[in-house]
Amino acid sequence: MNIDLVILGTVGLDDVETPFGKVKGVLGGSAVYAATAASFFSKSGVVSIAGHDLPKQYLQFFKERKIDIDGIEFKGKTFRWQGLYEFDMNEAKTIKTELNSLSEFEAKVPDRYLDAKFLFLANTDPVLQMKTLSKMRNKPFVVLDTMNYWITSQKADLLKVIKKVDLLVLNEGEARQLFDTPNLIKAGKQALALGVEYVIIKKGEHGALLFSSNDFFSAPSYPLEQVKDPTGAGDSFSGGLIGYLAKTDDTSEKNIRKAIIFGSCIASACAESFSLDYVRKTNLKNIKERYHDFKEIRRF
Amino acid sequence: MNIDLVILGTVGLDDVETPFGKVKGVLGGSAVYAATAASFFSKSGVVSIAGHDLPKQYLQFFKERKIDIDGIEFKGKTFRWQGLYEFDMNEAKTIKTELNSLSEFEAKVPDRYLDAKFLFLANTDPVLQMKTLSKMRNKPFVVLDTMNYWITSQKADLLKVIKKVDLLVLNEGEARQLFDTPNLIKAGKQALALGVEYVIIKKGEHGALLFSSNDFFSAPSYPLEQVKDPTGAGDSFSGGLIGYLAKTDDTSEKNIRKAIIFGSCIASACAESFSLDYVRKTNLKNIKERYHDFKEIRRF
Repeated sequence: MNIDLVILGTVGLDDVETPFGKVKGVLGGSAVYAATAASFFSKSGVVSIAGHDLPKQYLQFFKERKIDIDGIEFKGKTFRWQGLYEFDMNEAKTIKTELNSLSEFEAKVPDRYLDAKFLFLANTDPVLQMKTLSKMRNKPFVVLDTMNYWITSQKADLLKVIKKVDLLVLNEGEARQLFDTPNLIKAGKQALALGVEYVIIKKGEHGALLFSSNDFFSAPSYPLEQVKDPTGAGDSFSGGLIGYLAKTDDTSEKNIRKAIIFGSCIASACAESFSLDYVRKTNLKNIKERYHDFKEIRRF
Repeated sequence: MNIDLVILGTVGLDDVETPFGKVKGVLGGSAVYAATAASFFSKSGVVSIAGHDLPKQYLQFFKERKIDIDGIEFKGKTFRWQGLYEFDMNEAKTIKTELNSLSEFEAKVPDRYLDAKFLFLANTDPVLQMKTLSKMRNKPFVVLDTMNYWITSQKADLLKVIKKVDLLVLNEGEARQLFDTPNLIKAGKQALALGVEYVIIKKGEHGALLFSSNDFFSAPSYPLEQVKDPTGAGDSFSGGLIGYLAKTDDTSEKNIRKAIIFGSCIASACAESFSLDYVRKTNLKNIKERYHDFKEIRRF
């Protein structure tokens, strides 16, 4: 069966510590968080690499979430990341990174993925993002996410691929860094000037901004009293967003606003638990309830 | 004629430098910014102190904006503040403060102010805030603003007066500091637990949050590409808010949501110019246009 939504990114095993607990060797990675979030709306195929040490229960998890893993190559040991969140929970401090098989990642895309209508280039090497994008046969709607590491180390490659995508997602810090301005409105407009149709700037607890040539949308965040582990919330936001776009097959500005809110619903649920534990407590009904709450918290 | 809206706070002469220019000896102070913003909706009476050196053109300004200054005592020299905003424009660095006559401020409230239905205790000494509040005869609706300085130096006095007010306004940093938590939702709820009916947490470029016992509202900010001088934007927000409440004589949660948006419209206009220059370019029609824009930027 052909795949409508393809997600390129990492599969990893994480050790995470926050003021509310710690976990070791749990499933993580940008593609995993994104595909899991998307799975509330759409089946996706993941292009990634993992090691033979990836615990069987995690393969089972992909199966349960109906995530297609034919695009995951298995080789050597799985990428590992160790992170720490301190008092303010705003940014992860990376304690250790072991690239392992990720250093040999070539982004091999199965043939039955190549006609997908939606492609999410989650955070990974911009050269692999470009390579994957170039392979696609039917000009999919492409969403791209990145991180400060690539802005610093491969800005030229990153800008090259950004110019090819339809929707660029940056967080606050990345937007300021990439466009060298403290003003997010300016940063958003500069991103549009690269030729991208839509730009989203994620602001964590402060919501998200959407820019397009003649429109602007400011989304609130879901009010969370207890953030347990922010790992993967950003990937869950984008995954939920593109999952909703793929399901509705509608990339109008109006529908992207809705997709942003659905992405925020899933990201907020994700941050309330460690790793991907939220999926055990969350179903589409809960997400729709949060969506309804969002309507209320912004009415005036 | 009796006064319906009373504003307690400072009158000052400011020297301000930002990356976009500098001004010297311009009109400022919490009560002045607040009363000016309120003047788009309501006449207010200011309780403050200024020096005999306050330039005549500023007295003329009060007259033009129909701000009643019978509550301003004139004595010695005017309070002066010198501030600098650097690249990120988020926080003023205080270069110099000369208290001058402000050190003798006693908050004398004219008799014809004492039956006011609305009282804004703008940023000033919490002991004077309490003194003013206690004098009022007809249990007005009271809004209180403060700053980190009072949280550090007079927390007990501040908490005492907070418990007497109807609506508490804090900025992000103050909320985190006062309730010793990085989580703004927790901070808002702790503030409500003090017995305050409404709590607003201002987040500058990220908008504002409103908490009440069974409601939550998240207001966006107005998208500004060019912030020239943030001085007084917070006071303008609260002044616009209480001016609108006084005009409509409605303190329901629903109307406070609207008042927050009107306050944000005025605060955003204020930040686009130095000092109070914005009033020359802004009328009620412009403010209502911004209000309409706010509806659009949050629709989904």
